[in-house]
Amino acid sequence: MIRMRIPHIRYDYVKKLHRAFKAKTVAIIGASRNPNKIGHQVVKRLLEGGYQGKIFPVNPKANKIEVEVNGKKIPLKCYKSVKEIPDDIDLAVICVPAQIVKPVVQDCIEKKVGAIAMITAGFSEVGPEGKKLEDEIVTMVRKAGIPLIGPNIVGVIDAPNKMNASFAFSLPYPGKIAFISQSGALIIGLIGWTHEHKIGMSTIVSVGNKADVDFSEFILYFKDDPDTNCIAMYIEGVDAGPEFVEACRKTTPIKPIIACKAGMSERGALATMSHTGSMAGSARIYDAAFKKAGVIRVESLDELFDGALALSLMPPMKGDNLIVITNGGGAGVLATDSAEKFGIPLRDTPEDLQKEIRKFVPWFASTKNPIDMTGMATDEWYARATELALQNSKVDGVIVLYCHTAITSPMEVAKALYEVWERNKHLGKPLTVSFIGGIECEKASAWLKEHGIPCYPEPYRAVRAMAILRQYGRFLEKLKGSS
Amino acid sequence: MIRMRIPHIRYDYVKKLHRAFKAKTVAIIGASRNPNKIGHQVVKRLLEGGYQGKIFPVNPKANKIEVEVNGKKIPLKCYKSVKEIPDDIDLAVICVPAQIVKPVVQDCIEKKVGAIAMITAGFSEVGPEGKKLEDEIVTMVRKAGIPLIGPNIVGVIDAPNKMNASFAFSLPYPGKIAFISQSGALIIGLIGWTHEHKIGMSTIVSVGNKADVDFSEFILYFKDDPDTNCIAMYIEGVDAGPEFVEACRKTTPIKPIIACKAGMSERGALATMSHTGSMAGSARIYDAAFKKAGVIRVESLDELFDGALALSLMPPMKGDNLIVITNGGGAGVLATDSAEKFGIPLRDTPEDLQKEIRKFVPWFASTKNPIDMTGMATDEWYARATELALQNSKVDGVIVLYCHTAITSPMEVAKALYEVWERNKHLGKPLTVSFIGGIECEKASAWLKEHGIPCYPEPYRAVRAMAILRQYGRFLEKLKGSS
Repeated sequence: MIRMRIPHIRYDYVKKLHRAFKAKTVAIIGASRNPNKIGHQVVKRLLEGGYQGKIFPVNPKANKIEVEVNGKKIPLKCYKSVKEIPDDIDLAVICVPAQIVKPVVQDCIEKKVGAIAMITAGFSEVGPEGKKLEDEIVTMVRKAGIPLIGPNIVGVIDAPNKMNASFAFSLPYPGKIAFISQSGALIIGLIGWTHEHKIGMSTIVSVGNKADVDFSEFILYFKDDPDTNCIAMYIEGVDAGPEFVEACRKTTPIKPIIACKAGMSERGALATMSHTGSMAGSARIYDAAFKKAGVIRVESLDELFDGALALSLMPPMKGDNLIVITNGGGAGVLATDSAEKFGIPLRDTPEDLQKEIRKFVPWFASTKNPIDMTGMATDEWYARATELALQNSKVDGVIVLYCHTAITSPMEVAKALYEVWERNKHLGKPLTVSFIGGIECEKASAWLKEHGIPCYPEPYRAVRAMAILRQYGRFLEKLKGSS
Repeated sequence: MIRMRIPHIRYDYVKKLHRAFKAKTVAIIGASRNPNKIGHQVVKRLLEGGYQGKIFPVNPKANKIEVEVNGKKIPLKCYKSVKEIPDDIDLAVICVPAQIVKPVVQDCIEKKVGAIAMITAGFSEVGPEGKKLEDEIVTMVRKAGIPLIGPNIVGVIDAPNKMNASFAFSLPYPGKIAFISQSGALIIGLIGWTHEHKIGMSTIVSVGNKADVDFSEFILYFKDDPDTNCIAMYIEGVDAGPEFVEACRKTTPIKPIIACKAGMSERGALATMSHTGSMAGSARIYDAAFKKAGVIRVESLDELFDGALALSLMPPMKGDNLIVITNGGGAGVLATDSAEKFGIPLRDTPEDLQKEIRKFVPWFASTKNPIDMTGMATDEWYARATELALQNSKVDGVIVLYCHTAITSPMEVAKALYEVWERNKHLGKPLTVSFIGGIECEKASAWLKEHGIPCYPEPYRAVRAMAILRQYGRFLEKLKGSS
């Protein structure tokens, strides 16, 4: 499928996207009275999310629609056309069927809306006829200079703006990750995940057919978005390769980008063709492009979000000296194996640090690295060891493992670690944590994430997250070296 | 550290372990009145777990101890010595300090207890003096023919027997996995995990210093345990290599064994030395031994329990034809990549199956494999597609992916899948599932696992679990071919 590709990034569009994400006025064109229709649901989701801007439903056949929000029916005035709305419109969300989309787009152009998010499907993804219609619409909006997101998207979600302009169930758990996804179903599925695992997101955007605005322009928008400090992507295929690399190279010196590229296998590449019509391209080309652009590539969704969580909360790891602190030998060994696997093998604990830790751990504890304080470790020992490690000039990053025991409360360990982190975060060294205890540790683990410390249910994942922080650190070092 | 290794498996001991796990009478020697002492906690945990056998606290300094169980204080008569107990004792749990352990063991021998679980620490793991004491005790119990589990263990847990003879917080979530762990802290941590993720376990045993009973004898006991259909192990080091391999080779044709071997990295091997004093040995030796014995080796705890869950609930996959059914293209692509990565690459859907599925999916759905029914898929479509796939003679295993959408209830999809599974499980083909939706899918996902279908939060893990089922299937085929 040949797209109407513009062979350069439109920097004015990057700025224009601000009106889409931080919209103060949203028009929903195709706002149905029928609660099962997407046009109805978008209005409902905006209201449920607590959007503070103005909502303008557009429906030529209705004077008002009633939307049920938390059990209450809320009536909203409807407009016959977007042109009838008295206010300026920042974001027009289009939900009408593809066959009648053209006059609606024309209205948006005449109204001079800030941006269009086209949820409507049935374009290039369904065949040549749809592609023709899509091209015509793209020609229209480009002439008018209005960015078009989509079509065939879930919508546009901005958590700080409390704007869920989509048919996804809710706003994500709030945080600093911007998520750009080429799969709408994954967005819908993953929003529940962000709440379950406290993976905080600022913004979620579904790129859909990316007929007009493409990855590169979204990436550059998030580079400048103060609400975002890490960009996570689910990618099936990039058509505009050079622009993609250019956008990433401009961004990665400032904010990390982590991406799960699906279709890296041969068969997977075929599957992306039938899903998004994307040319998945050879795995080697993507690998090279990602490396060049400093994009961290991961293989699975949990790696993507584990990594994004760490990148959004912690500074990069600026050297190779990693210290692992544990109360369980087994967990320590597992972390040691993982550290080697992920390219940050453990070295001996610095002598001075060993000496200081020896002062409070039992004689049969090990201070070598992993520092195994034994099952007798209290929350106070955790605090002391972690603080000493973070403050040691030879240490670049600290992983804390906690196996639930009868003598400690996970919540007290969590609070102790948080206090240490708050006192020492100015040092710019990353901390990742693993609490092993399932339901016994659930609250403490959630609490840590709510308080800005990435916590994982097993050592392997805490190490993998740290390795991602190190990968970003190495990229920045290389960059510095070459500049 | 040279252990008092017996260079053969004691098959009479394998049988004797039955009295330990299925004990009808348990003596807790060192049952303290102090709730902070382990000897007190073991009594408490037994009561809390609802143990139906008889509990005999032994404490020479007390006539009775009071144990708080669910807010109620329960008084229990104490015995001065195990020898004073009128009943036969199946399992004696020893919690007294190492210095006074010898006369206590002597009492157990005179009482002819069925087995000893020695929680007490301070033996070979702390140095040569402890080692000497350990050896003396081992000599004593071996002469008497009483199996000794430990020392330095968390305890012995048997879920069907409702026996939590340990200081771990509770019985695990009930199921068919026997877990043998060389790390006590991991056991304590992981019990909460089994409840959180509904990973059903029959038995948990902490091998500790494995001064007497070793891996091999536990493995063979579980081979014959009707409550167990999969053995999961956390291993740091195996001393008795030939016996270990012999026990595994006898077991794997009947029940799968999955193991996480820690200390596979160089540094990790060092860490196991300081943790359990185990010679971790070279990674290559372990790899070869595991392969020879049909043991499935994994790298992390979540892989261990994801795999064990599938192995305990599903039959092995008996051929290479895997079908993936999805309602989200992205999830399908991810699964396709993972299938290739894990050695079970997707092939085209059989023609007849494609034709049958075409009858109810929309024209823009893909039936190629992954079968992408599109976001319009209902629970009924899921049921039909899954049933058709399971019943197709060219299909060997089915993975079902569900991305949460507005038009379906995850619970209804789960129930539909369960009904299909119940109707078709006699076919002996495995099914694994991924529900992507975080909190939105939590209930449905838990429900599936409660009803015997392994469900994971992301496609990658559902595929990895299926690949483990295929690995076991291949092992069985090879065995058949060579016999």
